[in-house]
Amino acid sequence: MAQAVAGPEIERLVQLLARLPGLGPRSARRAALHLIGRREQLLGPLGEAMRVAAERIVTCTSCGNVDTSDPCTVCRDASRDRSIIVVVEGVPDLWALERAAAIRGQYHVLAGVLSALDGVRPEHLAIDALVARAAEPETREIILALNATVDGQTTAHYVTDLLRHLPLRVTRLAHGVPVGGELDYLDEGTLQAALRQRQAF
Amino acid sequence: MAQAVAGPEIERLVQLLARLPGLGPRSARRAALHLIGRREQLLGPLGEAMRVAAERIVTCTSCGNVDTSDPCTVCRDASRDRSIIVVVEGVPDLWALERAAAIRGQYHVLAGVLSALDGVRPEHLAIDALVARAAEPETREIILALNATVDGQTTAHYVTDLLRHLPLRVTRLAHGVPVGGELDYLDEGTLQAALRQRQAF
Repeated sequence: MAQAVAGPEIERLVQLLARLPGLGPRSARRAALHLIGRREQLLGPLGEAMRVAAERIVTCTSCGNVDTSDPCTVCRDASRDRSIIVVVEGVPDLWALERAAAIRGQYHVLAGVLSALDGVRPEHLAIDALVARAAEPETREIILALNATVDGQTTAHYVTDLLRHLPLRVTRLAHGVPVGGELDYLDEGTLQAALRQRQAF
Repeated sequence: MAQAVAGPEIERLVQLLARLPGLGPRSARRAALHLIGRREQLLGPLGEAMRVAAERIVTCTSCGNVDTSDPCTVCRDASRDRSIIVVVEGVPDLWALERAAAIRGQYHVLAGVLSALDGVRPEHLAIDALVARAAEPETREIILALNATVDGQTTAHYVTDLLRHLPLRVTRLAHGVPVGGELDYLDEGTLQAALRQRQAF
């Protein structure tokens, strides 16, 4: 498509933009034109930011977060509680929990969840590293912040079993009604969990 | 938000991505993580494509298209009909018409439409250049492919008046039912135009 409209450089930009999540071929073309119209303010700086990121981003060898330093910003932060490790499936979950600023602990990115269908076995995940970190004397609680899916919960059970011999608490996120959520839009499973785990008012 | 999760390089990438049309702060973060996870295949090449584009993209001095060469790929294409000039509001419209591959003529980008509300007057648009191109002896038809909005149609009338003294046809796009469109979803104006301009079957 559109080969004749513009040089190969622009077509290449459109094709690469179309591979971003949330952009299809049409919106990639719109984004490319938006960028081209703002060459100085946006196109140049964004290209430069990507070059810097591509060069400098590394995976934290301690927790699995991505950052431009190793250990990452979270692991280096001395003000954080080193007795708590929050276990997440992926980096997006870590970032989401940090945005919520709900806990000032450490993290551990499993880089996936166990899945019989997708052939993901324990050795594919950062589970050994988690057990090693959990065995450190300073660790006192492991919070399993895994998705409330079948695979997420299977992984949670598997990890809990591995940690059973260690002198620490293993907890998981509460299930319940999302804040701001309306009851009649919620599924039965959530409503049942919210009732079962009801709190004194 | 999320200042503590990652270094300033990643935050900057997220902020710049959030300025693309179609991406908000949340999807920009998702796009950044997607890019970071595909450093070799996507992040690096996209950054490089943007750098090249920022360096080399120019506006065609003949038609107003954006390209890495001036005159642009369309204007240089010797196989195109030089007797037809398709007048469009912006580069996205030019690209859309090229994707449809409906006509192999030349283009002229006005870079906007007349608008009393927004204070856009004739001297802000590439109208003089259009009249000059229309006066070339090889030009035989001007197709006004402007949006079917009040401002677009005002501009079409204004341009038509300026071209009245020249020995050429001035045409505009047909109004009617979009191909694949369902009648009961169409507005009255479109249905009236489609009936008024009905064709022998």
